[in-house]
Amino acid sequence: MKIIIINGPNLNLLGIREKHIYGDKNFGAYMCELEELYPKLKLEYFQSNHEGALIDKIHEIGFSYDGIILNAGAYGHTSIALADAIAAINTPVIEIHISNVYNRDRFRHHSFISKHCKGIITGLGIKGYELAIQSFL
Amino acid sequence: MKIIIINGPNLNLLGIREKHIYGDKNFGAYMCELEELYPKLKLEYFQSNHEGALIDKIHEIGFSYDGIILNAGAYGHTSIALADAIAAINTPVIEIHISNVYNRDRFRHHSFISKHCKGIITGLGIKGYELAIQSFL
Amino acid sequence: MKIIIINGPNLNLLGIREKHIYGDKNFGAYMCELEELYPKLKLEYFQSNHEGALIDKIHEIGFSYDGIILNAGAYGHTSIALADAIAAINTPVIEIHISNVYNRDRFRHHSFISKHCKGIITGLGIKGYELAIQSFL
Amino acid sequence: MKIIIINGPNLNLLGIREKHIYGDKNFGAYMCELEELYPKLKLEYFQSNHEGALIDKIHEIGFSYDGIILNAGAYGHTSIALADAIAAINTPVIEIHISNVYNRDRFRHHSFISKHCKGIITGLGIKGYELAIQSFL
Amino acid sequence: MKIIIINGPNLNLLGIREKHIYGDKNFGAYMCELEELYPKLKLEYFQSNHEGALIDKIHEIGFSYDGIILNAGAYGHTSIALADAIAAINTPVIEIHISNVYNRDRFRHHSFISKHCKGIITGLGIKGYELAIQSFL
Amino acid sequence: MKIIIINGPNLNLLGIREKHIYGDKNFGAYMCELEELYPKLKLEYFQSNHEGALIDKIHEIGFSYDGIILNAGAYGHTSIALADAIAAINTPVIEIHISNVYNRDRFRHHSFISKHCKGIITGLGIKGYELAIQSFL
Amino acid sequence: MKIIIINGPNLNLLGIREKHIYGDKNFGAYMCELEELYPKLKLEYFQSNHEGALIDKIHEIGFSYDGIILNAGAYGHTSIALADAIAAINTPVIEIHISNVYNRDRFRHHSFISKHCKGIITGLGIKGYELAIQSFL
Amino acid sequence: MKIIIINGPNLNLLGIREKHIYGDKNFGAYMCELEELYPKLKLEYFQSNHEGALIDKIHEIGFSYDGIILNAGAYGHTSIALADAIAAINTPVIEIHISNVYNRDRFRHHSFISKHCKGIITGLGIKGYELAIQSFL
Amino acid sequence: MKIIIINGPNLNLLGIREKHIYGDKNFGAYMCELEELYPKLKLEYFQSNHEGALIDKIHEIGFSYDGIILNAGAYGHTSIALADAIAAINTPVIEIHISNVYNRDRFRHHSFISKHCKGIITGLGIKGYELAIQSFL
Amino acid sequence: MKIIIINGPNLNLLGIREKHIYGDKNFGAYMCELEELYPKLKLEYFQSNHEGALIDKIHEIGFSYDGIILNAGAYGHTSIALADAIAAINTPVIEIHISNVYNRDRFRHHSFISKHCKGIITGLGIKGYELAIQSFL
Amino acid sequence: MKIIIINGPNLNLLGIREKHIYGDKNFGAYMCELEELYPKLKLEYFQSNHEGALIDKIHEIGFSYDGIILNAGAYGHTSIALADAIAAINTPVIEIHISNVYNRDRFRHHSFISKHCKGIITGLGIKGYELAIQSFL
Amino acid sequence: MKIIIINGPNLNLLGIREKHIYGDKNFGAYMCELEELYPKLKLEYFQSNHEGALIDKIHEIGFSYDGIILNAGAYGHTSIALADAIAAINTPVIEIHISNVYNRDRFRHHSFISKHCKGIITGLGIKGYELAIQSFL
Repeated sequence: MKIIIINGPNLNLLGIREKHIYGDKNFGAYMCELEELYPKLKLEYFQSNHEGALIDKIHEIGFSYDGIILNAGAYGHTSIALADAIAAINTPVIEIHISNVYNRDRFRHHSFISKHCKGIITGLGIKGYELAIQSFL
Repeated sequence: MKIIIINGPNLNLLGIREKHIYGDKNFGAYMCELEELYPKLKLEYFQSNHEGALIDKIHEIGFSYDGIILNAGAYGHTSIALADAIAAINTPVIEIHISNVYNRDRFRHHSFISKHCKGIITGLGIKGYELAIQSFL
Repeated sequence: MKIIIINGPNLNLLGIREKHIYGDKNFGAYMCELEELYPKLKLEYFQSNHEGALIDKIHEIGFSYDGIILNAGAYGHTSIALADAIAAINTPVIEIHISNVYNRDRFRHHSFISKHCKGIITGLGIKGYELAIQSFL
Repeated sequence: MKIIIINGPNLNLLGIREKHIYGDKNFGAYMCELEELYPKLKLEYFQSNHEGALIDKIHEIGFSYDGIILNAGAYGHTSIALADAIAAINTPVIEIHISNVYNRDRFRHHSFISKHCKGIITGLGIKGYELAIQSFL
Repeated sequence: MKIIIINGPNLNLLGIREKHIYGDKNFGAYMCELEELYPKLKLEYFQSNHEGALIDKIHEIGFSYDGIILNAGAYGHTSIALADAIAAINTPVIEIHISNVYNRDRFRHHSFISKHCKGIITGLGIKGYELAIQSFL
Repeated sequence: MKIIIINGPNLNLLGIREKHIYGDKNFGAYMCELEELYPKLKLEYFQSNHEGALIDKIHEIGFSYDGIILNAGAYGHTSIALADAIAAINTPVIEIHISNVYNRDRFRHHSFISKHCKGIITGLGIKGYELAIQSFL
Repeated sequence: MKIIIINGPNLNLLGIREKHIYGDKNFGAYMCELEELYPKLKLEYFQSNHEGALIDKIHEIGFSYDGIILNAGAYGHTSIALADAIAAINTPVIEIHISNVYNRDRFRHHSFISKHCKGIITGLGIKGYELAIQSFL
Repeated sequence: MKIIIINGPNLNLLGIREKHIYGDKNFGAYMCELEELYPKLKLEYFQSNHEGALIDKIHEIGFSYDGIILNAGAYGHTSIALADAIAAINTPVIEIHISNVYNRDRFRHHSFISKHCKGIITGLGIKGYELAIQSFL
Repeated sequence: MKIIIINGPNLNLLGIREKHIYGDKNFGAYMCELEELYPKLKLEYFQSNHEGALIDKIHEIGFSYDGIILNAGAYGHTSIALADAIAAINTPVIEIHISNVYNRDRFRHHSFISKHCKGIITGLGIKGYELAIQSFL
Repeated sequence: MKIIIINGPNLNLLGIREKHIYGDKNFGAYMCELEELYPKLKLEYFQSNHEGALIDKIHEIGFSYDGIILNAGAYGHTSIALADAIAAINTPVIEIHISNVYNRDRFRHHSFISKHCKGIITGLGIKGYELAIQSFL
Repeated sequence: MKIIIINGPNLNLLGIREKHIYGDKNFGAYMCELEELYPKLKLEYFQSNHEGALIDKIHEIGFSYDGIILNAGAYGHTSIALADAIAAINTPVIEIHISNVYNRDRFRHHSFISKHCKGIITGLGIKGYELAIQSFL
Repeated sequence: MKIIIINGPNLNLLGIREKHIYGDKNFGAYMCELEELYPKLKLEYFQSNHEGALIDKIHEIGFSYDGIILNAGAYGHTSIALADAIAAINTPVIEIHISNVYNRDRFRHHSFISKHCKGIITGLGIKGYELAIQSFL
């Protein structure tokens, strides 16, 4: 089973900046933990601050992987192009928000991509990624 | 550890009606499965179609339990009173939506209670309840 | 043929209060008239000011009766839970408004339940219930 | 007693086109049925696709007839002029929608004329016209 | 100098119906008064309930007359086509409202044609037509 | 003189929870103080988290009491049914908000019941109930 | 007969600035013309850039004069206090706009004072003041 | 192959008025050019300023022609009745706007009929009609 | 203890005009009553129709008085400057509305100053001022 | 004559995915057909999922080519930057939508770029590109 | 070169109150600093809490000075009259906000006067006035 | 002291295109002028049309530089991702708009990034960059 975790803009700073919102766990270390927990899974990781690069990656693996775990960051709120990419592929996508977006700015309450995802996990911290993996199993 | 699953209006019909939206699993059977999977957990279940009864129950257990898993059904979209009840208690709450509400009516996209919950799990079917339990563990 | 008339909040005051809007006919007397007019019909009546009680009743008879005539009162304007209950059952529902709601407050122009009803009869006074019966015949 | 049924734009295609929405009954045949059912009634019929022609007709009969049964079609959603015509006359008007407009486009949920009508019958199919007649009796 | 007074829908009932809003003066009698007051003026009158007929008339005289006094009635609130007709012609137009529309329904506060008129006279009763004539002199 | 104080949802937690918003006075103790201050008054108290129970109570005493002091809590923001109940009775109602709702969530700025109340006292803490009593005297 | 012309903010620059919008006539000279045209009339003039001064003046003459011709300038779009002053007095008010406000900024299309005025004359230039006088005669 | 070009309100002035927006080509001359270019096509032309006449014409030819090229003018922005007519017929319709409506008034950006048309050609001048013909071929 | 009552625009007409809304009590006489009722209190009174004068007064006494009772009239609905003045001073402010503003124009439902006041008393007539005094004691 | 066809995000999947919306023609093959049809034309093709890359390309060719045919995909609905790029160049642009966007999501009805384009062709399928070429000829 | 700094409502409290928002510099002292820094400049200062007084001052110096530096305070958000005054004069105006208004209330994000100013400097503290002077030099 | 000037989309055309809006100064030449004026400053320049590249650059220098002067162009109006990047870094940012955006399209009045910037300088032309440098000194 092949699953990819895709993180969008500013999530390269995870565990480094704004720890009061996103927690202090380094994502690299977290990936190692996940790989230990699910040794039979083929787990891949991709991060980009470029909307176009995220779309390219989704096209690339969207017809052969078994699951995409996508934290689109701010692009979830603004990118119809990303939403269209998800609608166009075969692989099911689970949308992740680390923080509870409903406690934050009004414009973070709407996501263009939710409609095309299998499900959404919000506010359960970095553990949300693991819950998404379990949902795919 | 004491966890309660609270289901709101019309969810007594789960597994019986509108199976294309909510799936065909009977909730009683599902509770048995969960109890087997988590034998050390004290799991309770409550369902009501009465907004006031849901608030009464949240007050009753909201200072002694370790977690509430709440599928407020339609009351999530309309009940500020329910949201206030969640804000007033100590026990953390995880909000569950069985279906992906972002694929349905516009008025189902907003929930008054999300803001006061620890997190939200949407669209992952009846399995969402189990993921919420794992999140509490 | 089994038909139930369900009246929502404040409609227990029908014929007693605000007669300039709702008329001065007592609903009990009106039920007797209807039973005389349609002697072969099994006609039942239910009124409650509790949203949850209305939902419970709709679940209870919604798979065995032939018609529901529902004047949801103010809950028609605010209750998605009631609308969901109607969507979940088999029995067709006709929505009744005694007064012409389009001559009254702006928020009375919208009803969450209309969409799930077979039809709506508005502003034709207490006679609207009888027209609904004829529509079911 | 003199009653006129007035049908607005596109309703000349009734029973011919879009039968899944409006049913397959030809309106001419239906008028014959109504005349047989209510032999003592003077029943008239008028249809036009012209907003101005509908207003002219309403002016013409609006001070001498006992009832107008008006299916204004799309003009109900857009014509303040038609609403003004109804407000200006003496004859009471009952508004008819054959289909349940609350299941259709958002702009069909509002009618300028409802406010000036005695009542509204919606979604009960072509039978709505007959119920309106009974309401006038 | 050639001036035409054009009245839109329902204004054929002026002086006959809804006198509390529009006054009780018959428009024919009023035209006679105006002709006496301004004997050197060529004054014409046109009324129609048909949007298209109003447009046709505006096209017909809009390149040869010296002034149009237009009470478009409800079409002022809904007809972009009428506004386009005014924008296309050479003759200046003064818009008249007999009643003070700002004391009436919210949808009467907006007029599509005002933008293309030379000026607007509102709420000064039937005398507004005479003031418009004086404005053209 | 008979006056009833009615408290809506979550106000059973008054003086126990969220003291930074609602103060730390226990409502039972406060009722004793009021009874001592106004010994000649017949003062009653009712609290419920059920919208329907509040409506039932208002119907029950709304034709015989001299004043209702109503803190409808969150139902003030959402319940048209409660507003209709107030509009239907004879007893005048004064609406109370303990906290200044204009410093809180946007949706707390609107109350359906204000329109039908004699007056509204907001943000003056638990003392607001006493001021309402004085207003009735 | 006593009539006052009141001009609001920035109208002291009339005839001096922005002549393409407001024309090039000096208001003092215009007042002289009006006095010559209507020698029997007691005509007064007042201009202020202060909202409060306009209200004070309206209170002062609003119970003894026969007519107020008010060009409230920008205060018409923003001042509820001015509108309340007009509603409170006996003297009828005619609102004047020199330019056609419907050809200008969106926020100039709404006036709080129109509702309380006898009528409104818009876009007929400085001649609008004279038409208002004739309307009072 | 039978194709009809239908032009709506004010388009009888095409080539005569407002040439800076619509160009200076006379439509009659243009029809001749088209007939020469497509000699095998049966090309018809219809223009009316009457909404009802446009609907009548669409009903008349909408079950026998192969294509309708419709420039509905201002009625495209306001007429649900016209949109319903298009939805009711068999013949496919292509909507034409001569000018780029997105450079003009905000209310010209929305068309009720677009949804029911096969396609829309906007802003390509009078040549848009010819492109529509080619699209039908 | 020093308390000032400040009345905003048009409230100089209190007891003189629009008695059906504001009652018929003269404010001078009312001040005398209050002084008799609370002989130990230093009570001051200020009224102005000038927004700037109200701000000046609030600055002047806002650091030395114990309470301000402010009926801002229409400026409460429009003046952010007044709200800023209240936010800038030390003295607590209680906002008063004599009439129930929720029964009046829609724009009277919002007040910029409420947020910065200690509390708000609405619709309890001229007695509201006295209740505010008691709240300060 | 030099013309470039630019396709935006997800249009690399054209003819491969979502064929029910976009048709099943491969764009490479379609380019060959176009080159055969217009042998004298210098036709170029560019596709990118990167908003920035589309802007770079438009800058690069926007001062030397004779026409741009742009299907901006989802970026048309969200990218002001792309619209600014079109406004800054000399080469005229024709906007293409393969599907009829007015039959799809509400947010697809608005395009930031339309205003700056010469024209727009919508819903005529892949043939729209060819019609755009003819429009440039 | 003659430049005037004009401060609007509540800015007389600058350096005295709400120092966390506006800083603790006394404006008088700051004026001295500016005069020392720019000895060749004729620098004037004016502050008022009266909208009308600000307009009067702008008229007075708006045809002879070389620059106006205007911190309109709350009047920037509400006063169209002030905006009209700026539009009417010759002297260019630079708008200043000491604090970053985009971090504060929603209604502080809009300013009626910005459109008519040469430029706007926001959030750079009291130094913004000096930057404005440099911009004029 | 290290300061970077970052220009967003289409600003590579500065001084070349749309000179009536943005002026005719070439940005390279302007950078030279700035370097001469502030010889002790380490001044860097970066321009990109790629949203992701701007975010990458902000991350790269956002923890070591002393100031960022950012003209985000159109991305300021649409990019929450860019705003999040600014919120995540340590270096203070000053937002620059060369033109007065309040004189242009409505959608240019809102910027997602303003909230997270130290200040904003708008409409003062290319000199705005220099004023920003002075603000950092």
